[in-house]
Formats: sequence, C-alpha cells, structure tokens
Amino acid sequence: MISKNQLKLLRALGQKKQRKAHGLFLVQGEKNVLELANSALTVKQIFATADFLAENRSELSGFECIEASLDDLTKASTLVSNNATIAVVEIPSVETPKAQGLMIALDGVSDPGNLGTIIRVADWYGIKHIVASTDCADPYNPKTISATMGSFGRVTVSQLDLPSYLEQSNLPVYGAFLEGESVHKTEFAAEGILLMGSESHGIREHAAKFVTDKITIPAFGGAESLNVAMATGIILDNLRRQHS
Amino acid sequence: MISKNQLKLLRALGQKKQRKAHGLFLVQGEKNVLELANSALTVKQIFATADFLAENRSELSGFECIEASLDDLTKASTLVSNNATIAVVEIPSVETPKAQGLMIALDGVSDPGNLGTIIRVADWYGIKHIVASTDCADPYNPKTISATMGSFGRVTVSQLDLPSYLEQSNLPVYGAFLEGESVHKTEFAAEGILLMGSESHGIREHAAKFVTDKITIPAFGGAESLNVAMATGIILDNLRRQHS
Repeated sequence: MISKNQLKLLRALGQKKQRKAHGLFLVQGEKNVLELANSALTVKQIFATADFLAENRSELSGFECIEASLDDLTKASTLVSNNATIAVVEIPSVETPKAQGLMIALDGVSDPGNLGTIIRVADWYGIKHIVASTDCADPYNPKTISATMGSFGRVTVSQLDLPSYLEQSNLPVYGAFLEGESVHKTEFAAEGILLMGSESHGIREHAAKFVTDKITIPAFGGAESLNVAMATGIILDNLRRQHS
Repeated sequence: MISKNQLKLLRALGQKKQRKAHGLFLVQGEKNVLELANSALTVKQIFATADFLAENRSELSGFECIEASLDDLTKASTLVSNNATIAVVEIPSVETPKAQGLMIALDGVSDPGNLGTIIRVADWYGIKHIVASTDCADPYNPKTISATMGSFGRVTVSQLDLPSYLEQSNLPVYGAFLEGESVHKTEFAAEGILLMGSESHGIREHAAKFVTDKITIPAFGGAESLNVAMATGIILDNLRRQHS
C-alpha cells in the first residue's frame, strides 16, 4: 500500500523544485524500473503491483519493494499510462565530463520528451555524456525519464554554462544548422562535440560562436525542418558510420 | 465567434468515427493551418484569433475565416497548446499509390504522434506515399496532423490491406529488423519499399514474408531499440545518400 505521506512525496516529485529539495526523482513504467537493476543509481523504494513484483522477483531482489494496487499507482503517477510500477531514486551527483570522445551538447532544448529521446538515441550510438545549457529540460523530469526507455542509466546529462564549456574544450564542435556542409560529405573527426539547438531558436549566438564546423542534414522534399531528436539521431548515424 | 453548432462539430472531429461520418478533419496550430494555403486540400472554414487573421491576411484570402477568441479556440481544440487557429478540412479521396519510387509501408504503427513524425521525416526525404496497415493510427487524427508540422499536405497515407499490397508490388521490400544487414553496408536499389513495424510487435509475419531484404541500424551502445519514427528517419537518410 502507498501511505499518505508516500503519495505526497510521489506527487511532489513531479515538480522540479521538489526533486531538487529532496534530491530524488521518479522512474516509472516496467522497462525503466527494470533498468534500475543494471544501473549504479541508488533506489529508495519501488512501488509496484503484485503481478509485477512476482514476475520480476530476481531482478528486484535487494530493493525495498512496496506492493500497491494499479489504481493507487495510477493515482500516484505523473504519466497517463504504463503505471505498473514507480521507483523513487536518488539524483546522482554527476561530475562534469571531460571533453573527450564523442559527445552531445544541447542549447535550449526545453522539451522533456525530446531530451529523453535524445538520451535514448545517444545510448544507441554509444554516447556516454550530454552537456546541456541550464535552460534545457530537466534530465530528471518524469517525461524525460520515460522517453529514455531505460537509457537514463547509461548516459549522463550535465546542465552547465554551455558557452564556457565549449570555449574550454579542445574538440571540434559540429553545429547543426539549416545551412552547412552536408553530413553525407562531412569528414568527421574521431572525437568531437555535436551541438544541437532548439527547434524554435536553433543554436543561439552564445554557443554558435564556438562552432568549428557547420553541418546540415540534406533535404530532398518539402519539410522545412526536422524534430531536434530526429536530427540528432540522423547526425549520430552519419558520425558513427565513420568512427565506430 | 464559434457558434454552438460549430463547437459541437469541432469537438466531434476529435473522434475517428465522426471524422469518417462527416468526411472532415481538423488542422490545428499556426504552422499547420498556413500550410493549407499551399495544399490542394479543400478547406471548409478557418477559425482563428483576430491577430492571426491580421498577420496572415494574404495567405488566408480565399478561405472562409471566422474570428474567435483564444479562449473559445482553446475550448474547441483537441490539443493542449498552439490554439491560435483551427481549420476544418475535407478528407481527400486518396488513390492507392502505384508501387514505384521510394515508399514507406507501416505495419501496426498505432501511435498517432509516431505516424505524424514519420510523415514529417518522409517529406524531408522527398517520399510522397506511405501505405499503412488498417490497424495503423488514423492519418487524420489531430495528434498525427499536429506532429506532421505541415507535411500532411505533401505526403499521402493510404490505409489498406498491407500484405496484398506488398505481394503485388514488384519492388524490393526493405524490412527493418533488430537483426539484418547493417544499413551502413546495404546497397539499396533506386526504387523500393521501406517496411517498418511497431515498437512492440515489430513487423508481423503477414507482412514479414514479403520482405526481400532484412536491414538493421547498427547499435554501438546499450539501448535495446529505437523509436519507430527515429528508425525510419535514420534509414531514409541511409537510402537517400545512395539515391538522391
């Protein structure tokens, strides 16, 4: 059963301010919660249906599990579906990653779903670190975590002063613009930072001035733009075909 | 002003059954409505704020425009945001496309947002026709239209008996599976059908048996899968780099 206090906490963790105050975030849905067993994250509690607990006994051993009805879980959830389980997890302290290897930098990507999808595709292409401007979506927003489909445990997202980070890095910075060299023709270096802006504002000047290579995804039809997560995935594929 | 009867119609068109009965669908949001001016679709009415009508006077000339308050438009909208304008548009009669050129086939892709994103990325890569199994999301669902970001006017989606369509086509059918030849190494033909399945079920056997080439997006990290729209975009990029 979910106690009143527990319900209050779960609800509170839907908000960024409360996540920060408690140092906790929510992981919801079967796939995402099961990923916790393979991650280094510290899990406080897992609330789940009796069925889910029974089916995943071995993966969940070692965690504090609390059985709850699907109705109660649905009430506690910040998502509309996929409510068989909710975990309360400590927000890890993430060290600012050294600028090395292949990385992603995000400027003003404010939609949590897009951020989550970028984390997922980054994980697919073996990218370990994302650096993000402070006005990007919160990496611990429930919608972000949900969209990562479990990849939140394998990719770090550091919110930081993006222009200084780019300024201090010695890597090439590949900035995605609507005009630039076609990614089909770009010779990518083995290490570098892929910089993506938001759909509405693109890469803003404070970050754009550190771009060493302007790149673009060639268009063949009538659409004016691509979703930022989609564009990130397509460019990563072009990068990885040269440097796996 | 939106009359009571008009409001009733707008609300009704949120449902598939009602769209079919009226032969009408909704186009919502500034970008999508402005695309109507460039499309061959028949627009019944455009409801919009005074500001939107004033700003886009030339694009909207020739349409029946009805001024409404943002409050009324928000009440009528089936979407949570982006409510400055709503258009009522006739569902066009789409002929089943001939199997030629590059096409996309979808098997059981039931999420309207995914379908809309696929339409958008298809348009980016110059694909004109999508054929979809009858249990795919409705191409005229407001969430589909919204996610296309205007591309709904340039790409046709035909819901049909997918296995027979694939059986009768003489094109190679590239089926996206988790195991198959890497799209980085595949030699694509100039004409062909890219077949995508749903995230939960993949390509089902009734369609899989017509696949001539199993392809896959190579993975370099820990994610188990990609979103179907993302995967479609990445494969189209690989196709187009060979045949533009």
